[in-house]
Amino acid sequence: MTTFGESHGPALGAVIDGCPPGVEISEEDIDRALERRRPGVHPFSSQRREEDRVEILSGVYMGRTTGTPICLLVRNTDARPSDYGALADVFRPGHADYTYQEKYGTRDFRGGGRSSGRETVARVAAGAVAQKVLSGRGISIGSRIIEVHGATSPEGMEREIAEAARLGDSVGGVVEVTATGCPAGLGDPVFGKLDALVAMAMMSIGAVKGVEIGDGFAAARMRGIEHNDQMDGRGFLSNHAGGILGGISTGAEIVVRVAVKPTPSISREQRTVDTAGKERTISVTGRHDACIVPRIGPVAEAMLALVLVDALLGQEMIRSWIHRSGKPISPGRET
Amino acid sequence: MTTFGESHGPALGAVIDGCPPGVEISEEDIDRALERRRPGVHPFSSQRREEDRVEILSGVYMGRTTGTPICLLVRNTDARPSDYGALADVFRPGHADYTYQEKYGTRDFRGGGRSSGRETVARVAAGAVAQKVLSGRGISIGSRIIEVHGATSPEGMEREIAEAARLGDSVGGVVEVTATGCPAGLGDPVFGKLDALVAMAMMSIGAVKGVEIGDGFAAARMRGIEHNDQMDGRGFLSNHAGGILGGISTGAEIVVRVAVKPTPSISREQRTVDTAGKERTISVTGRHDACIVPRIGPVAEAMLALVLVDALLGQEMIRSWIHRSGKPISPGRET
Amino acid sequence: MTTFGESHGPALGAVIDGCPPGVEISEEDIDRALERRRPGVHPFSSQRREEDRVEILSGVYMGRTTGTPICLLVRNTDARPSDYGALADVFRPGHADYTYQEKYGTRDFRGGGRSSGRETVARVAAGAVAQKVLSGRGISIGSRIIEVHGATSPEGMEREIAEAARLGDSVGGVVEVTATGCPAGLGDPVFGKLDALVAMAMMSIGAVKGVEIGDGFAAARMRGIEHNDQMDGRGFLSNHAGGILGGISTGAEIVVRVAVKPTPSISREQRTVDTAGKERTISVTGRHDACIVPRIGPVAEAMLALVLVDALLGQEMIRSWIHRSGKPISPGRET
Amino acid sequence: MTTFGESHGPALGAVIDGCPPGVEISEEDIDRALERRRPGVHPFSSQRREEDRVEILSGVYMGRTTGTPICLLVRNTDARPSDYGALADVFRPGHADYTYQEKYGTRDFRGGGRSSGRETVARVAAGAVAQKVLSGRGISIGSRIIEVHGATSPEGMEREIAEAARLGDSVGGVVEVTATGCPAGLGDPVFGKLDALVAMAMMSIGAVKGVEIGDGFAAARMRGIEHNDQMDGRGFLSNHAGGILGGISTGAEIVVRVAVKPTPSISREQRTVDTAGKERTISVTGRHDACIVPRIGPVAEAMLALVLVDALLGQEMIRSWIHRSGKPISPGRET
Repeated sequence: MTTFGESHGPALGAVIDGCPPGVEISEEDIDRALERRRPGVHPFSSQRREEDRVEILSGVYMGRTTGTPICLLVRNTDARPSDYGALADVFRPGHADYTYQEKYGTRDFRGGGRSSGRETVARVAAGAVAQKVLSGRGISIGSRIIEVHGATSPEGMEREIAEAARLGDSVGGVVEVTATGCPAGLGDPVFGKLDALVAMAMMSIGAVKGVEIGDGFAAARMRGIEHNDQMDGRGFLSNHAGGILGGISTGAEIVVRVAVKPTPSISREQRTVDTAGKERTISVTGRHDACIVPRIGPVAEAMLALVLVDALLGQEMIRSWIHRSGKPISPGRET
Repeated sequence: MTTFGESHGPALGAVIDGCPPGVEISEEDIDRALERRRPGVHPFSSQRREEDRVEILSGVYMGRTTGTPICLLVRNTDARPSDYGALADVFRPGHADYTYQEKYGTRDFRGGGRSSGRETVARVAAGAVAQKVLSGRGISIGSRIIEVHGATSPEGMEREIAEAARLGDSVGGVVEVTATGCPAGLGDPVFGKLDALVAMAMMSIGAVKGVEIGDGFAAARMRGIEHNDQMDGRGFLSNHAGGILGGISTGAEIVVRVAVKPTPSISREQRTVDTAGKERTISVTGRHDACIVPRIGPVAEAMLALVLVDALLGQEMIRSWIHRSGKPISPGRET
Repeated sequence: MTTFGESHGPALGAVIDGCPPGVEISEEDIDRALERRRPGVHPFSSQRREEDRVEILSGVYMGRTTGTPICLLVRNTDARPSDYGALADVFRPGHADYTYQEKYGTRDFRGGGRSSGRETVARVAAGAVAQKVLSGRGISIGSRIIEVHGATSPEGMEREIAEAARLGDSVGGVVEVTATGCPAGLGDPVFGKLDALVAMAMMSIGAVKGVEIGDGFAAARMRGIEHNDQMDGRGFLSNHAGGILGGISTGAEIVVRVAVKPTPSISREQRTVDTAGKERTISVTGRHDACIVPRIGPVAEAMLALVLVDALLGQEMIRSWIHRSGKPISPGRET
Repeated sequence: MTTFGESHGPALGAVIDGCPPGVEISEEDIDRALERRRPGVHPFSSQRREEDRVEILSGVYMGRTTGTPICLLVRNTDARPSDYGALADVFRPGHADYTYQEKYGTRDFRGGGRSSGRETVARVAAGAVAQKVLSGRGISIGSRIIEVHGATSPEGMEREIAEAARLGDSVGGVVEVTATGCPAGLGDPVFGKLDALVAMAMMSIGAVKGVEIGDGFAAARMRGIEHNDQMDGRGFLSNHAGGILGGISTGAEIVVRVAVKPTPSISREQRTVDTAGKERTISVTGRHDACIVPRIGPVAEAMLALVLVDALLGQEMIRSWIHRSGKPISPGRET
């Protein structure tokens, strides 16, 4: 999967290569997924009102995938690059402005350009295709908000976001993403481990600063007898491993949690410098979420779906190979 | 980088492709790195006593890299596959036995085979080459143990490990890995983000169940004004981001923490099944660490070095390109 | 580089990742390149009249690349899928109809879908960007027709094409592509050899059935003393190698020739089968070139440019590394 | 697949990743393949007498692959680096000496180092594993010499080689490689075309300067009605396409021909320069083949096997997916 596009350019999109043929997919399926990540569907969220509608440019014919690359395009209709003119030469704290400038010696400063959260539109669109493939195999993916600025109840989370918004500030939180129905055997040893690919996928989402699988950091405070998932004839007796052992899925629910940092765009005054190195202060106004945690869920689901569909296809090949090779392979014993 | 080899096969090794020419490297340099991860150098560690010595098979001529693939080989000299005969048909809880069997319909059951922690020998050897390259550019990498089973003082950690060993049990912990001296600009946008690559590298180490960058999960409990790293004319005033913004290095210290689960091999009795699906109990005896946290440090350093050297070479190309293209590129303003 | 799109779907396009920042590029630059491959600019060519105009969707800001992925989109405006209704269930000889059906169990039969020569629009668009980068470094790429159905003079070639058109038949030919101004050192040993990458790039063009570098197949009839390019103080005294030795550019002109098969779409009656396996005869009417050799040139140039720009950027990194490492590396002597 | 090693270093080898589990393979199987490419088994061939014996270091347990990376190692036992001392600072015409020096600013000058034909030992070893996998599916690979310095009869070829040897010169030739038993459907559209991958694989062999599929360059002199492979109910009536259409296998025999240049190492006097740019003459003595065409066959077979096994595994996944998705996918008709 490849994505392209900037926050305030003409369009964003994704090209998906390697999707199997025959999967039913429509623009409506994808639009429904986009609707979930859309700004403005949660209170306190960004006021940017984009009617995100996908156009399928290739790879689907008569409602089904053909096996060739699928290009998905979403036009930017509410781009207001002029909002960002004042930011052309100053680095916003917590954003990628400084690092892009250092990397490329230039940057598209309009709303963060390529580093903008708006880039996730392309991920969600591609993820919708992946989820279609997975659901055909009985795998379903979901997410929920675990915590916002320390609060774990819905009311408490709402209150924390409202308070941050009132202060012109922002708050972070934790999202849990899960996949049920995954067969055992997904993932490859050593460098293609499923948990490693999931960690990369999650950490590639802007604002994510931590990833854990199963008990994660809590496992650091456990004994082996507590953390090991014992088995009986019906399967695992617990799921501390979060559905992955040795980088390969166990068949149990896959459980991933991601730490989301507070939105860096805040109207509170902050110290920074401009591209000439001169000290400045900045107060970032405009259409921003006081908390992007609710919008990370659909993105994290999309990323998990994309990783799983690749792993599923890889394992499909191995199982088919073993099956067609005839005789079962048993571990045997050295003689 | 590619690694190969199983815990109790003839040898393990790595092939490093794309190393620049002219880097001074010797077998002694690599042996020193291997010595740090060796079993038996810490109290309570595995009693396997392997004299790990690397052999450089290619890519180095007269003490310097030539630019061609470097193959590093470490022979297994203390392999005792017969120790594992009893485990041929039973799945050890917390290990990859069950998942490998499900994936491939077969497995090399001797000490976990390819999924064994011994595979990290190859990573450490390759990492030693990467660290040599980095140190030539003033980048140094280190690690320290932050926590063992909740204890944060050296004495407390020792006590927790001893207590676990006494019980035939094990404990987990947290390791922090850092890189100082990294220039700004390393990493690519979107799917080649530096933090995403670091997360993948760390999560690919067996026993690691969580990764965080900078404040990580603590950022979920912060406000934007606390987490944003403000700047003045001399640089960043804090480093909550852990040296990475928008997936690209800021020039500040890179700070990564990994959660390590308790060693799954414990002598306490556990419930499991065998390859025929019959219920069994198991008590894993043999040469095992009650806590592998001290041995994860050198491996995590190696993985960070491998990621950074790739990113450094990638950015070398971009900077050189910009430099040779003559005129500086400034962000400018729309007119 | 990734391309997407089918012959008679809504659009074709390409996503270019890794283009360096600061390169001036406009939609007009790309349209000029597309104009050269357009059907209808040569006599006897396909009568499909497509006003191919590119839209740059991302990665370019204020007329210069930003370093982020560049998406190029070309709409299909003269698609006439209804022309192809009669071909829905019959396999055209010489086309990919049968192989796609065998591979995927389905296919987009409209004009060959993904396997259509129209897919090369995306390659030419991407190649135009690559050529811009190369020309900034003094590298220029060109092509010429060497032979059409055995004829080597312009008049002879025209006559061969006219004769084939009159018969409802088609003819093949040979195109030579060259790059001048390439520095020595491009390409990597063993699996990243420049000639291997060029061969892959050329053979990936539909209708190409052979590739040769320098003297190519003629070298099979030469002695070593004839084929070896000797040197004096000013450089190579000949260029039998076609500018590549050991997979790495020598600094001499890069010379590649490709064999193009006769257009498979001919109106002469041919035997074939339909998707039900029933024997049929077919006469392919519609808008087809009697000879596509003239249109392969711009595509082959684009492919060569794409390979060279990757190799140039890779070598840029190595040279910069060596340069910054200070002391020159000399081969020395064993002591 | 990754290979490593230099002509006169300690060892050469290959790491094969992604080999399916359960394939029976022994060191003897591989040694038999190595025997075929060994210097000295043909008259007039290099007098280097290497007893090439492979050691399987990983990925095979109890005689069968486990699915994990397979490392194959072949020691260099007859390396005589001192033979090459005189060549330390002079560039041999037709070799990669000059290009490696230009690329890396250094080189391992002993027998060409990484660019030596001896590197193909690793390819042949890896190819032997691939051929084992293929033969389990009824696919067999073979090669034959078509032409040596224009001669096409065995006696003529022998005479040409003898004459070249007598003159201290060398000759080139053409080798044909074929695969029978390949199912239709191997290869991917556009950039993963089977013929493109075959071309890359072949051109990556040192000394190969041209590749053609099926009729190849002869197709350039044909009409469509001659070149198109028509079908009846039993299949294709001819095989001008060489078993590949639109980059995907047709099920017919795959036919590839490669042009091999004359061995560049000749004892006839040639003009060249040294690393200081000074003009020199050179006469390359030592153990060299007057014609390497006979030894290219086993290497080209190995490369074809490696490409086909990847394509076969990829298609295995797609067919299995389609099969498990239940209903057959038919192209249908637009309504």
